[in-house]
Amino acid sequence: MLVNASPSTTIGYQAESHSVVIIDQTQLPHAFISVELSTLDGFCHAISSMQVRGAPLIGVTAAYGFAFALMDGASDTQVDDAYHALLSTRPTAVNLRWALDRIRALVTPLDPGKRGEAALAEAHAIRQQDIEICEEIGRNGERVIRDYAQHKRPGEPINILTHCNAGWLATVDWGTALAPIYKAHLAGIPVHVWVDETRPRNQGASLTAWELRHQGVPHTVVADNCAGHLMQTGQVDMCIVGSDRTTSTGDVCNKIGTYSKALAAADNGVDFFVALPESTIDWQLTDGVKQIPIEQRDGRELTHIVGLNSEGDRQEVELISGSAVANYAFDVTPAKLVRALITEHGVHTPAQLADLKRDLDDKSRVA
Amino acid sequence: MLVNASPSTTIGYQAESHSVVIIDQTQLPHAFISVELSTLDGFCHAISSMQVRGAPLIGVTAAYGFAFALMDGASDTQVDDAYHALLSTRPTAVNLRWALDRIRALVTPLDPGKRGEAALAEAHAIRQQDIEICEEIGRNGERVIRDYAQHKRPGEPINILTHCNAGWLATVDWGTALAPIYKAHLAGIPVHVWVDETRPRNQGASLTAWELRHQGVPHTVVADNCAGHLMQTGQVDMCIVGSDRTTSTGDVCNKIGTYSKALAAADNGVDFFVALPESTIDWQLTDGVKQIPIEQRDGRELTHIVGLNSEGDRQEVELISGSAVANYAFDVTPAKLVRALITEHGVHTPAQLADLKRDLDDKSRVA
Repeated sequence: MLVNASPSTTIGYQAESHSVVIIDQTQLPHAFISVELSTLDGFCHAISSMQVRGAPLIGVTAAYGFAFALMDGASDTQVDDAYHALLSTRPTAVNLRWALDRIRALVTPLDPGKRGEAALAEAHAIRQQDIEICEEIGRNGERVIRDYAQHKRPGEPINILTHCNAGWLATVDWGTALAPIYKAHLAGIPVHVWVDETRPRNQGASLTAWELRHQGVPHTVVADNCAGHLMQTGQVDMCIVGSDRTTSTGDVCNKIGTYSKALAAADNGVDFFVALPESTIDWQLTDGVKQIPIEQRDGRELTHIVGLNSEGDRQEVELISGSAVANYAFDVTPAKLVRALITEHGVHTPAQLADLKRDLDDKSRVA
Repeated sequence: MLVNASPSTTIGYQAESHSVVIIDQTQLPHAFISVELSTLDGFCHAISSMQVRGAPLIGVTAAYGFAFALMDGASDTQVDDAYHALLSTRPTAVNLRWALDRIRALVTPLDPGKRGEAALAEAHAIRQQDIEICEEIGRNGERVIRDYAQHKRPGEPINILTHCNAGWLATVDWGTALAPIYKAHLAGIPVHVWVDETRPRNQGASLTAWELRHQGVPHTVVADNCAGHLMQTGQVDMCIVGSDRTTSTGDVCNKIGTYSKALAAADNGVDFFVALPESTIDWQLTDGVKQIPIEQRDGRELTHIVGLNSEGDRQEVELISGSAVANYAFDVTPAKLVRALITEHGVHTPAQLADLKRDLDDKSRVA
């Protein structure tokens, strides 16, 4: 998507310098800084320090990190060492392990001399696949938005509320929840996005607003507390959020606060959509509230915040001291509150996920 | 209530210096600074700059400001001038006008030479009445908390979630939503309070947490997004919030985000209480969503924030730039989500408010 009017992705291979270029997302929205990675240490640091974040992007970064390590030496021991070094950067990230496993399975049968090159090709493939999946989510979601547009007067925007950042910064390009919005905007459908600030890490105000601004999509940032009032007063036509983990029954584990927005949507007859790659559906799970453990993160995310001081420099200030804080990072939105899930395979209500699963299983049996 | 282990109120008359001492709440929680007021300008500034905030406290401050102005000169013109100067400090505050009207009605029939003294006595009475009303809300609410305590094991705390600051800092003493909690705590009932941060002005994290800390009440600050997860996982026994304006049918207009918390409570079978002085009930109103206009405040409350820098100095930083923001200050929680309203007259479900109104009317006819 666009940064300062130039097409950009969150991660890309640069042949001339034989390096991988990422955006240092810890500096956003205050500064747009690219970083070149070419060593295992550099890749590990990029993931652990959250220069890259978002499950899909973490997976792609890990894949490149693994490939670069193997190009420097790919004995069985070196494969194992690189695998574990990368895995330990964010131990709970599902896509991280998935990408590493995929590359390890590919290179293990190969001659060590051929492992690096094969891993790099696979990293390219993983990156490309992520772009295609997100773009397909965008196409499927655009059709949903188009349905709502038919009930609007010409030129009147569809008001879409989103929470956190499930945009292209969390993937390679397009994003998940924002992909339908970008597709609709590019197709000339007037959209306006309500962007939840998304405390405590403020990814809505910092990342989603930044993305939308650079893409030229009209949007307004609001406090997380505001969503209920907006829906109660008819200012929201639909919600689209992402998902970190989804059950086979359609329960959605996403950024803390997603559940409250879904409750407000339900109370006001606003349709609540979740956009996600099918890979985030854990087909084994049937009850999100009971089965998905919720990560608690450092309370410092709540007690401290970074902004720009009057000199325009990044500065951290302390907001709370002397009180206990709790910082749950995710919550579970029960399927009863979800209108439909938008994946690269189409748009399915929670009840229709079983059909999707059967179709996918049929396809994999044929293949 | 306690500040550094000493009993304190938000506002008090000091005979020796013939002045009124307030807490400069704009400095909390980072500094506890008292300010002496003795001129009309000083009182006006204290209200308009939000050194004092909270509807009851604004009313009491205005009463003293009016009295001090009249002690300096109380011709009919001077009465009018002081009245309008104070009224214009926060034109939408209901209690401000109520306190000024009460004093003007009292002094108008009097000889100008006696107006100042009479107004000061009335300001004392308004202050004292506020303390008594809040303490009675506390007593009535304590009985509610005690009911929940009976379902706990000995020593196990009642977990109470509150939003924004409806504590003693918003009144003279005790507060409204926090009064029952203080009474329960003082009575030895174990309580633990979940304190919503309450973006965008952070009155929960800044003021409620500060109050509870000084009173020794166990509490934990959470992001506003967190309430749903806490209730979904059985970590909240009841909610108590305040109200800025209440309809005769029990709809509650309170700080933005109150509605979302009430929805989460309803979805999880958690009882949602509202504590308020009866004076905030507007008996003419029957539909809060339709009839109560919602104030939009300066977007700067969302885009900028004040904290302590690494030198321990208060510093403002900018969080958002280049995006539109919207800052609705209040929302309306429909009566269907409210278990009961706790006032100085008792505990009433929304449906029972009509009985309360009849009782109050009967009493006023008898009196």
